[in-house]
Amino acid sequence: MKLSEIAHCLNCSLPGAAPDLDILNISSLEHAGEKSITFLSNNKFIDDARNSKAAAIIVKKGIVIEGKINLEVDDPYLGYAKTAQLFEEKEPLFDGPIHPSAIIDPTAAIDVSVWIGPGTIVGKSCVIDKHTNIGANCVIENSTKIGSNCRIDSGVIIRRKSVIGNRVIIQSGTVIGSEGFGNAVENGTFVRIPCFGTVVVEDDVEIGANVTVDRGNFTPTIIRRGARIDNLVQIAHNVEVGEHSAMAAQVGISGSTRLGKGVLLAGQVGLAGHLTIGDGAFVGAKAGVSKNVEPGQKVTGYPARDLMKTRRVEAAQLNLPEMMKEVKRLRKELEQLKDNTL
Amino acid sequence: MKLSEIAHCLNCSLPGAAPDLDILNISSLEHAGEKSITFLSNNKFIDDARNSKAAAIIVKKGIVIEGKINLEVDDPYLGYAKTAQLFEEKEPLFDGPIHPSAIIDPTAAIDVSVWIGPGTIVGKSCVIDKHTNIGANCVIENSTKIGSNCRIDSGVIIRRKSVIGNRVIIQSGTVIGSEGFGNAVENGTFVRIPCFGTVVVEDDVEIGANVTVDRGNFTPTIIRRGARIDNLVQIAHNVEVGEHSAMAAQVGISGSTRLGKGVLLAGQVGLAGHLTIGDGAFVGAKAGVSKNVEPGQKVTGYPARDLMKTRRVEAAQLNLPEMMKEVKRLRKELEQLKDNTL
Amino acid sequence: MKLSEIAHCLNCSLPGAAPDLDILNISSLEHAGEKSITFLSNNKFIDDARNSKAAAIIVKKGIVIEGKINLEVDDPYLGYAKTAQLFEEKEPLFDGPIHPSAIIDPTAAIDVSVWIGPGTIVGKSCVIDKHTNIGANCVIENSTKIGSNCRIDSGVIIRRKSVIGNRVIIQSGTVIGSEGFGNAVENGTFVRIPCFGTVVVEDDVEIGANVTVDRGNFTPTIIRRGARIDNLVQIAHNVEVGEHSAMAAQVGISGSTRLGKGVLLAGQVGLAGHLTIGDGAFVGAKAGVSKNVEPGQKVTGYPARDLMKTRRVEAAQLNLPEMMKEVKRLRKELEQLKDNTL
Repeated sequence: MKLSEIAHCLNCSLPGAAPDLDILNISSLEHAGEKSITFLSNNKFIDDARNSKAAAIIVKKGIVIEGKINLEVDDPYLGYAKTAQLFEEKEPLFDGPIHPSAIIDPTAAIDVSVWIGPGTIVGKSCVIDKHTNIGANCVIENSTKIGSNCRIDSGVIIRRKSVIGNRVIIQSGTVIGSEGFGNAVENGTFVRIPCFGTVVVEDDVEIGANVTVDRGNFTPTIIRRGARIDNLVQIAHNVEVGEHSAMAAQVGISGSTRLGKGVLLAGQVGLAGHLTIGDGAFVGAKAGVSKNVEPGQKVTGYPARDLMKTRRVEAAQLNLPEMMKEVKRLRKELEQLKDNTL
Repeated sequence: MKLSEIAHCLNCSLPGAAPDLDILNISSLEHAGEKSITFLSNNKFIDDARNSKAAAIIVKKGIVIEGKINLEVDDPYLGYAKTAQLFEEKEPLFDGPIHPSAIIDPTAAIDVSVWIGPGTIVGKSCVIDKHTNIGANCVIENSTKIGSNCRIDSGVIIRRKSVIGNRVIIQSGTVIGSEGFGNAVENGTFVRIPCFGTVVVEDDVEIGANVTVDRGNFTPTIIRRGARIDNLVQIAHNVEVGEHSAMAAQVGISGSTRLGKGVLLAGQVGLAGHLTIGDGAFVGAKAGVSKNVEPGQKVTGYPARDLMKTRRVEAAQLNLPEMMKEVKRLRKELEQLKDNTL
Repeated sequence: MKLSEIAHCLNCSLPGAAPDLDILNISSLEHAGEKSITFLSNNKFIDDARNSKAAAIIVKKGIVIEGKINLEVDDPYLGYAKTAQLFEEKEPLFDGPIHPSAIIDPTAAIDVSVWIGPGTIVGKSCVIDKHTNIGANCVIENSTKIGSNCRIDSGVIIRRKSVIGNRVIIQSGTVIGSEGFGNAVENGTFVRIPCFGTVVVEDDVEIGANVTVDRGNFTPTIIRRGARIDNLVQIAHNVEVGEHSAMAAQVGISGSTRLGKGVLLAGQVGLAGHLTIGDGAFVGAKAGVSKNVEPGQKVTGYPARDLMKTRRVEAAQLNLPEMMKEVKRLRKELEQLKDNTL
């Protein structure tokens, strides 16, 4: 790829005298070769940048690494992301467009530009839009709609009537539209409550591997535009994940909880059901949230509370055994003093 | 469906003058339409019930919502569950009974009423009983037995020699019969211990998506009648889950632990190995249990202890930083007092 | 199997007068039959050993169970593991070597001794070495290399360019090579960072069911020789798991964290990103680790700290509500004393 193409994508210009090199790849400062472009997103690595073999470097405006072609941008990490997308392999893994071993119900409406891998099953009345690419051994059950330019990786299961937007990525082993966990009780035995809702995944959502997203009851479970879900996450029935919210691996969200926009959940967080997590809230790793979280609030711990307060409690806990001893000493000395003053 | 059919299922009667309406669906108070039936399971929503568009409503005996046809039952939530089952879609997702792309070993004994989806593999000497419905791209390994009226969703893997009862539901991506995690050590390297046992899933069990149930060693891992297991749960080798026990998503149970009847484990709970959890015990969300739990006991926290005691400790922790300061003040004032009284 | 074959495998000898019995299986003390061999790995079960029906028993050197043929070894638990491996069923589950329904790209180089189950897909330019056995409905994506004598169970997904060593076991539903969770941000929306690295799984590694291992970025994610990973574990991009390290179910390791050799992580542990966990370190169940752990250090809790210190803090916490009351009493009595001494 020509360096000028990268500069164009980053909306910056090549320095005047810079040759329009052929760039082979983007790499880290350490692993870049002589035909690589790299990036400096943290000034503490400026020496590594100088020592990198890269021919070109994406830097923050105002920074210059001598001996390299510098592409100046506002946010070098964002520049890295965009450049990496330029270098991404785009070709499907399997011969297409539709592998002869895929089983497509004749009532499914599939755009001619869609690729479908071997062993994948597409059920009745499914609709799949332009340039969507589906891997091997997936199951797309009846009446599912998938938008354009999606990437559905091998081994994904999308259960019936799910609605997937455009430019959505769903990684291997993930199950969309499993039935929610709801039971009534009769004489000590559980009676299952079937779920009639669906799952709606809006545009530009990305979902990791081996995730489970339960269908809603009456109304859909919704993952809103631009959200990010890491591996092994559980999204229960009727949860709503707000726009541009993100959650790390192994998070679990219980039924009917609603996340606002731009919420961040760190790894292994658990949210109880029927909560509201406000816009821009942050929940620390492994926290267990049992109450609503206000917009912009940062909480952690179990039960989750204000982040700074929790940090102070955690620090204080370390001194707890010593404090217990001190309280006993105080008691003893106070009793002696009482005796003495009587 | 006729309202009289629903009333019959709920073992109640239509009010005398009520017309035997055609009911299209069951829905929530809010989402019901004019041809819906709905339910009132919590009296705090009685105004919503009055404002609901539903034609009919399932209520607790003695409650009457004016303007609706009232079906009076002991437990409206249970009435909802049963009515919802009436409305559940029952038809298989794929043409059947056995999709031509399914690969069935000729030694498997499969009842003529069984439906098997495309791409599903059934191994040697498997037995599958009446009216069981298996989805797409499943793998049922050799010598597995599956009872009648089961629902095995797309993408389930059941490993060899597993025994599945009647009316069992297993959701997509779940693995039954994976090998347990057991190792001896020789000169600092692990030596694998093969597991010779199986998994036994009794009647009326329901298992969520992307769950793992390890086979036992010598004796089987057992999920007893009527148990409920949510998504992404780990059941290790030789665990026994008692009748009508239930566990929420992302619970992990270590090897050889036994749950009694009617045990409830909230989300993300972890149980150590070789424990006994008594009948009717409750374990709070995210708790880590390292000791036996008595029948009927409620525990939470890490390490898990009595629920009420843990709640008091959690409340006290919030005051810990302030208490540390108070103890220091006490020390200082006591020293002054000592000086003064000398 | 002849008892002498077992003795030979355990590098011990049959007692002089012992007949070279046919042994049907290895079993526990309790479940052994008259043609079983069993083992005594803990002397507290010596009475069970005497009462066992087993014909032969693996014991620690110096122990003799009368009435049984005793095979004396240094470590009976290790002897059990090795004997169990002798009795393990080795035959593939499906007719082979390559099931006619498997779809193998003509550019794949597959040794003639490899078995591949029905419905499995093998992509372009894959290489699979001698005696490796792949289950049903797996997907092995383009340019993946798999060594010799591996066992890849049904439903495994190995994404493109992964490198799997020799004698590796990967259980059902596991995804190797999913894309890591990395995003830049532009105007409040996430911009995906594609990952160019791969996953390298070295020799003798064993990975459980429904695990996710993300591919690295620039450099590979690495699982080193002999490591053990239980079910539902998350390994993020660029993690390095050291030789002979082991982790229990539902552990999550964040990006770029490095485990040394012989590290043990108990169930549901979470490790933050960019940490170093030293050789031989131990992390207790459910701990959340946010700082480096020294070689040989034992930590637990959240945030994880020294194991013994954490145990003392946990014990002290139980007394916290009572201590709060005592501090209040001390305050009150001190004030009275002050008044009295004025």
